[in-house]
Formats: sequence, structure tokens, C-alpha cells
Amino acid sequence: MSIEITQQFIEDIQILITEKNNESLLVLLEDFHYADIAEVIEDLSIEEAIYLIRLLESDVTSEVIAELDEDIREKILSELSSKEIAEEIDELDTDDAADIISELSEDQKEEVIAHLEDIKHAKEIVELLRYDEDTAGGLMAKELVKVNENWNVLTCVKEMRAQAEEVTRVHSIYVVDDDNKLIGRLSLKDLLTTSTKTAIKDVLIKKVDSVNVNDQAEDVARVMQKYDLEAIPVVDEIGHLVGRITIDDIVDVIREEAEKDYQLAAGISQDVEADDTIWELTKARLPWLILALFGGFISVSVLGGFGDAMRQFPELFFFTPLIAAMAGNVGVQSSAIVVQGLANDSLRGSLWNRLVKEISLSLLNGLVLAILLMSAGMFFLGFDFKVGLTVSISLVSVIIIASIIGTFVPIILDKRNIDPALATGPFITTSNDILGILIYFLIAKLILGF
Amino acid sequence: MSIEITQQFIEDIQILITEKNNESLLVLLEDFHYADIAEVIEDLSIEEAIYLIRLLESDVTSEVIAELDEDIREKILSELSSKEIAEEIDELDTDDAADIISELSEDQKEEVIAHLEDIKHAKEIVELLRYDEDTAGGLMAKELVKVNENWNVLTCVKEMRAQAEEVTRVHSIYVVDDDNKLIGRLSLKDLLTTSTKTAIKDVLIKKVDSVNVNDQAEDVARVMQKYDLEAIPVVDEIGHLVGRITIDDIVDVIREEAEKDYQLAAGISQDVEADDTIWELTKARLPWLILALFGGFISVSVLGGFGDAMRQFPELFFFTPLIAAMAGNVGVQSSAIVVQGLANDSLRGSLWNRLVKEISLSLLNGLVLAILLMSAGMFFLGFDFKVGLTVSISLVSVIIIASIIGTFVPIILDKRNIDPALATGPFITTSNDILGILIYFLIAKLILGF
Repeated sequence: MSIEITQQFIEDIQILITEKNNESLLVLLEDFHYADIAEVIEDLSIEEAIYLIRLLESDVTSEVIAELDEDIREKILSELSSKEIAEEIDELDTDDAADIISELSEDQKEEVIAHLEDIKHAKEIVELLRYDEDTAGGLMAKELVKVNENWNVLTCVKEMRAQAEEVTRVHSIYVVDDDNKLIGRLSLKDLLTTSTKTAIKDVLIKKVDSVNVNDQAEDVARVMQKYDLEAIPVVDEIGHLVGRITIDDIVDVIREEAEKDYQLAAGISQDVEADDTIWELTKARLPWLILALFGGFISVSVLGGFGDAMRQFPELFFFTPLIAAMAGNVGVQSSAIVVQGLANDSLRGSLWNRLVKEISLSLLNGLVLAILLMSAGMFFLGFDFKVGLTVSISLVSVIIIASIIGTFVPIILDKRNIDPALATGPFITTSNDILGILIYFLIAKLILGF
Repeated sequence: MSIEITQQFIEDIQILITEKNNESLLVLLEDFHYADIAEVIEDLSIEEAIYLIRLLESDVTSEVIAELDEDIREKILSELSSKEIAEEIDELDTDDAADIISELSEDQKEEVIAHLEDIKHAKEIVELLRYDEDTAGGLMAKELVKVNENWNVLTCVKEMRAQAEEVTRVHSIYVVDDDNKLIGRLSLKDLLTTSTKTAIKDVLIKKVDSVNVNDQAEDVARVMQKYDLEAIPVVDEIGHLVGRITIDDIVDVIREEAEKDYQLAAGISQDVEADDTIWELTKARLPWLILALFGGFISVSVLGGFGDAMRQFPELFFFTPLIAAMAGNVGVQSSAIVVQGLANDSLRGSLWNRLVKEISLSLLNGLVLAILLMSAGMFFLGFDFKVGLTVSISLVSVIIIASIIGTFVPIILDKRNIDPALATGPFITTSNDILGILIYFLIAKLILGF
């Protein structure tokens, strides 16, 4: 199972590093998985981390470096020479290699690439650097097993043995024609159970899912999830096989996507973590708070506009935070359901049906809450019937309108190709706060006549 | 890439079903992936869906049924006989089979199991039914390829061919001893490149990650993500190999976990979708709104307690929604970052450091916002300097306290083994609303002396 890295263990490692006790360090970390070593390194100082990286074999440290948090990797790489970085890159699969190189400065990029030993590997990495990181091209690796349709199973197995040396995991064997166009696939299972003389043409499965090199990462994730694929080949505009994407990279895409939506819903605009600097956290949080502050100014003006009613009906003003909070909560609920429906592609039916449903739902919820409000208000808080009625009617109206806004703002954003997750969080709460308060006082004015 | 199911296509299918034009239906759906057929079925009426399921081959429809949304599957299965359900189950891997059977009523379960054709398959399914669905046992399938340490590569390849018939995807070959204890694994790659006479003992890789049958699904997901595994063997309490979990099931766990956290943050307590019934949506949403309503009552009482100040300083009451909204927003931001840090296991450093950081961060944000508030307030809204100062000082204090609450409530919940995601959303906004208003008026009382 997963190894627990204790504080004690980190301290032991630190002492061994201070003592330069290389032998014990090597023995201690011998059986560690690179993901665990990466965790250890993230708990060390940069100097200690570099000491360890220089000590361990590059087939391990290359994977460790690929696994590190981006901030920490940046700091470590800036202390290593281009030659040292190239040695690490030499060990990595093309996709991880390209990811790391793309984080370097332009000058360093060229130097590191010039130091790479394997020319073919270097060329493939340079090719991958061309693609945007959020596309299939940015996710794919060049390592894959492919065979020619004109071979037979025997040639195929021989070739595969040679290719498999380079490829960590063999998922599918892709079949191409003489022009390197993807025309099918072989399953490992079929290969195990077919006579060696059979022509590849006769056993290949023609139906092969693939994605285009320019497809968005999110769409690749959706296809691979939907069809339960563990790897998918990537083709260029004219059908040439150019790479493959494996599910472990897609798992990262799914997780990052979910984290981004979650953060947007909470009013955090960049990919930040608890351990980022105060400056990074401020950049991600402050803009949303400023938005909310300006929203707050508007609600101050709205309330100010009804200030004359204060002498006659002071209780009305006691209820503004309640009304605003309910509007905010309902809006966030509605928008969250729609945002998820859009992400899952599970939003069916017409807009009209959705409107009718949303109104029925919020009418039901609103009535239950209004009854609770009336009874609690009359029995415990002891306020005036007319004021209670005003607040209750406003509550129902505000809930209906907040839920309609919460439902349709993300749908509209999505139609305009804006990330609908933007609509949850501070944006919807702030606008619903203002609207809720406005509706509340307009209804109060109507009923109480101030 | 993925097939787009249009409204037109659904209508065509519906017409063909009405006409009972089986031949055209079969031709039309011939090359469809089961995931696409599942999408089609979700857009049909239950009667139409059942017509299609009875028409298509059970090797396809079994996968379709496994793919369907739970609500729709329930409706469809309730229209099929136990024998028909058993025929579908016969085609499925044990994990999907057990998932579907576990959704049936107790009586139906027994009937369906009695109708299963393959006794071994039936026994394995019954074994899987024992496990909680949120554990490794609940996720695993019995289908796997295993070999005995005492065989050689040739026997192994023969056995694998036989076993591979049953197993859709071969990831790793697990090696067991005579007692069925997991002792290692073989890579397919090694098997391709080793002489057939080699003893398995000599090529097996002893280091094999595994999980215990009682481990939580979330922990399995974490291990498989961390170590980039595509399949992991599952062992019982004494190390017997009892099943394996594949990454496609883990992808679902990760997505569901993310959706649950997202929904909790939005104040939705059950796993609902936009297309669920109004009743289901109400059950998921109303409890949180009631919580918020009672929170609202408290804020009404707090404001009522300061009602006397209204004559002297009416502006104070205009600012309550602003203060409450800022408290809510800051609290949600802080808690979201902590909840994600807890989920990723990336929360490092002592509580004390976290407290210092959170206070510095919110002091910085608070000061920027207070300056904005003061300048906008003086120049545009034209309110009294003393009131502006009161609001500004309150704003900074409220932001600091809201961020501390947002940070520590999820940490405390997590320490007590309560899902910290509960702390985001309405819970934190409501309590921060109340506290924010209270602090605001206490500070106002101190400064303005009413």
C-alpha cells in the first residue's frame, strides 16, 4: 500500500544529508517508489533536494522530477546545469520530457535540447513542444507500439519486442499502412491466441477510436471516460498516427478540471494550493472580493434608496441579510446543478421544460421556507403579521428569481463558449444579493405602502 | 470523435420502433458502441427502451444496462423478468454484475442468481455482493490473469491464453504460490522477451502494489493515482489474491468524489442531477436552505438587538448585506483551499504557521478592500467619515475572522473524521454571516458609542 512519510523519516534523511552519509541514504531509499521520493523531496530544503537528486540514479530522479509540484521543480531545475537537466530528460518518456522542457526559459530550452543524447528522442520532444498543453497534442507521448498492415504475426511480435523496450506499458498495438495512416489495432489477446503466420491484415480490428492532435484535453477525457479506454491513438489532420494518450494523464486532466471548477465556485481564480505564497493566493482571491465589494456598494445604494421606510418599518431592515443569504444560496444550488449537467453532457430537454421545472421546484421550496418563516416569526420572534407576510412573499419571489438566474446564467455563458463554472460562486451570489434586496423592498413597498 | 446523438436520430429510432422495423434498427445500431446505445436509450421512453433491449444481442445490451443512469436502469429492470435479467448478467464481468444485482430487491436478487448459467460466475458474484460498495472489495472484479510461481513461461502462456478468454483486458499477470497468496507479478513485456523454458520464479517481479479488500475506495484511488497504476490486485486479510481493480472504475470514483465535494460546497446534499425529479432535488436542497433560514433568524435577532442605533446611524444598516457577503465569500475561499489541500494530502506545516499565514493574507486583502471602501464611500456614496471608518475597520476584522473560521472548521472536521467538504457552502456562509454582522455592530458600538 501507500507508504506514510513521517516527520521523523524526513528528519532522518536530513541528518544523513548533513553527514553526507551517501551509503545509508542509498540503502534507505533503495526500494522507494519515485512518487514517494518526490514527496520526501517536497519536504526538504532546495539544497537538500539537489543533494539527493545528484546522489540517486537518473532513471529514478527523472521520474521524481516529473512528479514534483511545479513550483518546487522550477526551483530545483534552476540550480541544475543544462547538462544535468538533459541527463534527466534523456530518461523520460517524450510527454513528460516535453512538459518539463516547456517550463524552462527560452535559452535554457535550447541548451538542454542540445545536450540530449538520443537524437530521435530529442526530435520527438521538439515536435511535442509545438502543441498547446490543453490539446491532445500536448498530452500525447510519442512512445507507442505500431505495426504495418503488410506484416504477419511473427514479424509483428519481433518488432513489438524491439519497440516494447522503449514503451513502458503496451496497451494496444496500432496498425498503420505504408503511409503511416492509422487503419486499425490489434489486441494483445488476439496476438497471444493467433498463429504466427497469420497476416496482420486478417486479424486487425478496423474499428479504432482516435482523437485529433488539436482536440481539447477535456474532450479527450470525455471520450476516454465514455468508452472506458486506457489509451487512445492521436492522429494529425490527414490521419497519420502521431502519438498516443494514456489514461493516467487523463486522470490528471479530470482531477485538475474538477479542482478548477471547485475553486471557481469558491471564488478563487487560479490554480492555487494552500502552500502557495501569500502573493499568489492574493492574486487568486482578491479580484473576486473586489467584485463582491462593488456588488456590496450597489446593495448599499439600493437600501439607501429605501431609507425613508426605516422609521416606519425598522424590522424590514433586520431581514435584509436573511433575504440576501437565501437568494445567494438558492442561486448557487441551481447553478451548481446546471454546471455539472453541462460538464457531464447530461442536460437534456428543452429550455422551456427546464424553466417550468425550476419554477415548480423553487415554488415548492419557497413555500416550505415561507411557512417556517411565518410560524417562527409569529411565535418566537413576535413580529407584526403584515411585516411577516411581506417577508414571506418576498422570500418565495426571491427564491424563484434566484433559481432562474442560477439556472440560466451558466447555460447562456456555455452557449457563448465561456466557462459556466464562472457563474457559480461570488458572481451569482453577489448579483442575487442585489436583486434579492431590490425585489424584497419593492414588494414591501407594494404591501406596506411606504 | 465521440458520436453526437441528435434529436433527429432519436426520432428516427422512435419511428422505427413504432413500425417494429427490426431489420433497419439492427442495421442502424450495428456499429454503435454500447456507451452510445446507452445514451440513445436514456432519451427513449421505458417501453421503447425495453423494445430495443429485447431486440439487441445480450452481449451488447448487458454493457448498455451497466452503463445506464441508475434511475433509468431501475425502471427498465423492473419491467424485465428475472430470467431476462440473468441473461444480461451472464454476459457481464463480475464487478458490473454485482453492482447491478445489488440494486435489485432481496427477492429478485435470489431469483436472478438462481437463473445464472455459469455456476462459477454466480459464486463469484455472490462473493462480491458481501462487500460494501465504497471499499476495494466493492470495486474489484474477479476476472484476472494469475499464474503459479512453480510454472514456466510456456505453461504460463498456455494458461494465460485460456484465462484471457474471460478477461477483457490483461494488465498484469499476477503470480501466486500454491496457497493462492500473491507473491509477485509478471509484466507482459517480460513475457514477450523471455525464453519459454524460464521458470516463473526467476522472472517474477516481487515488488507488487496491492490493496486490502477492506480499504476505502478513496484510498485505493489515491494509491492508483499516486503510483500511476492501471490495475491493482486486491488481497484479503491473509494475503490471498481475491480480485483486481482497474483504472476505469477508479476514474468513476474520482469523478464522483469531485462531484460530491462540488455539490456539498453548493449546498446540495445528495448525488442529484439536473434531470432528477423535483422531489429528489428538493430532498437534496431544502435541508440546506432550512439551515440558512434559521441562520437568518439569528441574524434578524442580532440586528434587532442593535435596533436602537437605527435612528442615529441608519447608514450602518445599509452596510449589513455588504459585510455579511464579504464574510461569506472570504470564508468559502479559505475553506475551499483547505478542503482541497486535505483531499490532495498537500497540506503541510503546523497549524500555527497556517494561522499566521491566514491572518497575514486576510490582513493584506482586508486592507486593500478597506481602502477601496473608504475612497469609494467618501467620493461616490458620500457617507460620513466616522461611519466609513467604522465600516472599514469592521470589514478588515470580519475578513480576518471569517478566513480563520473558513480555515479551521474543515481542519477540525477532518480530525474528527467528518467530511470537511461539509464545511464549505451554506454552513460556512451562514455562520460567517451571523458572526460578521455581530462583529460589525460591536465595533460600531465601540467607535460610534450608541
